[in-house]
Amino acid sequence: MQDTICAISTPAGMGAIAVIRISGENAWNCVENCLVRRNKKSLIVPKMSYFCEFYDEKTVLDEMLVTYFKSPQSFTGEDMVEISCHGSLYVQKRILEILINAGCRYAKAGEFTMRAFMNGKMDLSQAEAVADVIASDSKASLALAMNHLRGGFSTAIKKLREQLLHFTSLLELELDFSEEDVEFANRQSMRQLMTDLHTEIEKLIHSFSIGNAVKNGFPVSIVGYPNAGKSTLLNALLNEERAIVSDIPGTTRDTIEDTVIIDGQTVRFIDTAGIRQSQNEIEQFGIERTYQSIDKSMLVLYVIDVSQTEDFSHIPQIDDILKIINFEAKKLLIIANKFDLLTQKKTLPNEYKGFEIIYLSAKTKENLDILHNRLKQFVISSTHNEQVLVSNIRHYEALKQALIALNQAETAFDNTLPEDLIAADIRQVLYHLSEVIGEISNEEILGSIFSRFCIGK
Amino acid sequence: MQDTICAISTPAGMGAIAVIRISGENAWNCVENCLVRRNKKSLIVPKMSYFCEFYDEKTVLDEMLVTYFKSPQSFTGEDMVEISCHGSLYVQKRILEILINAGCRYAKAGEFTMRAFMNGKMDLSQAEAVADVIASDSKASLALAMNHLRGGFSTAIKKLREQLLHFTSLLELELDFSEEDVEFANRQSMRQLMTDLHTEIEKLIHSFSIGNAVKNGFPVSIVGYPNAGKSTLLNALLNEERAIVSDIPGTTRDTIEDTVIIDGQTVRFIDTAGIRQSQNEIEQFGIERTYQSIDKSMLVLYVIDVSQTEDFSHIPQIDDILKIINFEAKKLLIIANKFDLLTQKKTLPNEYKGFEIIYLSAKTKENLDILHNRLKQFVISSTHNEQVLVSNIRHYEALKQALIALNQAETAFDNTLPEDLIAADIRQVLYHLSEVIGEISNEEILGSIFSRFCIGK
Repeated sequence: MQDTICAISTPAGMGAIAVIRISGENAWNCVENCLVRRNKKSLIVPKMSYFCEFYDEKTVLDEMLVTYFKSPQSFTGEDMVEISCHGSLYVQKRILEILINAGCRYAKAGEFTMRAFMNGKMDLSQAEAVADVIASDSKASLALAMNHLRGGFSTAIKKLREQLLHFTSLLELELDFSEEDVEFANRQSMRQLMTDLHTEIEKLIHSFSIGNAVKNGFPVSIVGYPNAGKSTLLNALLNEERAIVSDIPGTTRDTIEDTVIIDGQTVRFIDTAGIRQSQNEIEQFGIERTYQSIDKSMLVLYVIDVSQTEDFSHIPQIDDILKIINFEAKKLLIIANKFDLLTQKKTLPNEYKGFEIIYLSAKTKENLDILHNRLKQFVISSTHNEQVLVSNIRHYEALKQALIALNQAETAFDNTLPEDLIAADIRQVLYHLSEVIGEISNEEILGSIFSRFCIGK
Repeated sequence: MQDTICAISTPAGMGAIAVIRISGENAWNCVENCLVRRNKKSLIVPKMSYFCEFYDEKTVLDEMLVTYFKSPQSFTGEDMVEISCHGSLYVQKRILEILINAGCRYAKAGEFTMRAFMNGKMDLSQAEAVADVIASDSKASLALAMNHLRGGFSTAIKKLREQLLHFTSLLELELDFSEEDVEFANRQSMRQLMTDLHTEIEKLIHSFSIGNAVKNGFPVSIVGYPNAGKSTLLNALLNEERAIVSDIPGTTRDTIEDTVIIDGQTVRFIDTAGIRQSQNEIEQFGIERTYQSIDKSMLVLYVIDVSQTEDFSHIPQIDDILKIINFEAKKLLIIANKFDLLTQKKTLPNEYKGFEIIYLSAKTKENLDILHNRLKQFVISSTHNEQVLVSNIRHYEALKQALIALNQAETAFDNTLPEDLIAADIRQVLYHLSEVIGEISNEEILGSIFSRFCIGK
């Protein structure tokens, strides 16, 4: 933490400009000797951009804008300098070399944000959200990460902690006066508080599947017999997206195969290769793999070839899968594909065993908009009414640990065990909640959290 | 030029931060509605960084630093805004979309620099140097580009123009008084001036091969019979370099095969595949291709297998090539490779027919440092004493045209043709010199120059 660190904060590669950040006690000293300003006599005003020449020994290496941020009014809370140089690879590399020679150290991944956390500029869950903001690739994932960055999630956790602290303080007060056998807290309202906390924490834990879906994409599997048109359907959904996405150059991302953005949310299609090996008996399909992909998904699109379906009161393919997989929790849509091949339009049912049937043609795109709307409704209804979402697996694990401890406290309470045992359990709950916001942390945990960041942040 | 333009100026991709630039009359208006500052009441001070929330309709899209540059104190000379946002692909793309909706236009390649030129912030050769600065990949290529950016080359051209202008003004004065048959200019000193200019322009034209080598790498070909160890030698030279280069992450460039940086200069090894097909008669070697690669190179390393060489007074391989290729202009070093296999060290000559022989082993690296030093000397001596280097092919072509016109003027002068004919030729010289610095330009030329820039610059 004593070192002055430097790194390139802009994406790797050549560009019009690149930004190099320096943070630490000696930030200004490290660059000062290299810089010549137009107006040498004026004082350096913090947050003001200065046009400077940057010298490499006796020659001008580059001309650039330099901004100094004075502690604590900077991202890290330390003295910082931001150099906005030409985006030549050589210039970027050389400036770093010169800074390192001047006493800087090359920053580790996430080290700027880690320092911001260490210096109290943000709590740990906010710091973690910085990486999520950078990685966000859809409106929804960004909004979630920004909410966390801006302390939305921390506030929820802090509220729970406060309630618990109040609870334990009363319990511990009773312990202090234990010989006098007084009761400062009303036992019934105490029990109620525990129940409320239980509900709250459980709600947060349950929000993880939605939070994770918002962050990484809603998992949707497309299953069905071979030649039902699964790939055509997937391509039709993807192509519609491709026309919308990335018409602005420079923002094209490495395409993550099989994701589309619907209503600002990423929908991620899960590979269901397992069901593609055709057999008559569904058990021989590699049902395990299909089951796994269905298990990981929040919505299943079951594709049938409507032109091959004679009797709509009995669809054996679907029956086969319904026998094995329970769709109570999962949502299932039946996609009756190849609708265009259906010359004789018979009376077609709207649903089968309670599951909606959508008739469409992936090939001609007829009725594809209906499926698109259903996907949109599914995404909207999934995220509807969710105030605070857990999207970080570390938070999820800590909350689960908190709930276990809370369960123990409740059992102890209900069995009227001694107050100090209950208090110990509650302290355990507090411990896990504090972990989330980083009030309790250790170097190993911090190291593992920030190592997943990019360099320069 | 009336539009307000915007673009991402940092390298494409995800990173800690990205910088978006806006330039034009409405630059501030286009962002103002989206921004909420911490201290709303304070005035916006130009060049000052403000921490702002950027709104996408009613939600906070991102938190960022925003700096306003007031015309003419900006890169383009127009009002500009620089947004330093989180480097999420979604954030970058969305901000651009919002700016475009607010009335900005997505900038074309090089459009910011083109505006800087149009607004008189720099001349055309300086503007062109901006792209060279960004593309520079070695100390020398950067120093050359920076010299051009800072007006070093423009100054040389302007000096030539001034001398010519003085010359023509005298000539044209004589034309005005032609009936009176006066001579304002001393004919002898006029001729001397033309000769001096001729020498100057010719020197600049000749500097192009060095300038181009500094910019794109000194071309060196490694030729020789198969199994002489050409590839091993190349790898040995490259490996030495690889250990030095890119120990700092984030600066690794897509390796351009077969270049090393020696003393800050890029040395580019030219493929000599042609000579690899073994035949006894050198004419059957695909000599054309070898000849071409030698023709393109400034130095030739001729590799022989010293363990296969019996008689050092007669080396037929080298004789074969010396018969066909004239090495007066080219430098040739004979690399006597596989020195480690030479058990019986006989008396070995230092040179062969005037060309230095370096005994080394590419495999064991013995004496490789000698070659390295020779390459360094070659690079240093090539660039030694060169004050102004032409590195841009457009400038090179314009200077060649200027020289042709100057030649005509000299001939006309020597044949005492009428002054108006000489003046016309001199104006042609002036025209071509003006082209270089962009005093004379047209949209087509500008379009073609700036289209080679990256977006956002």
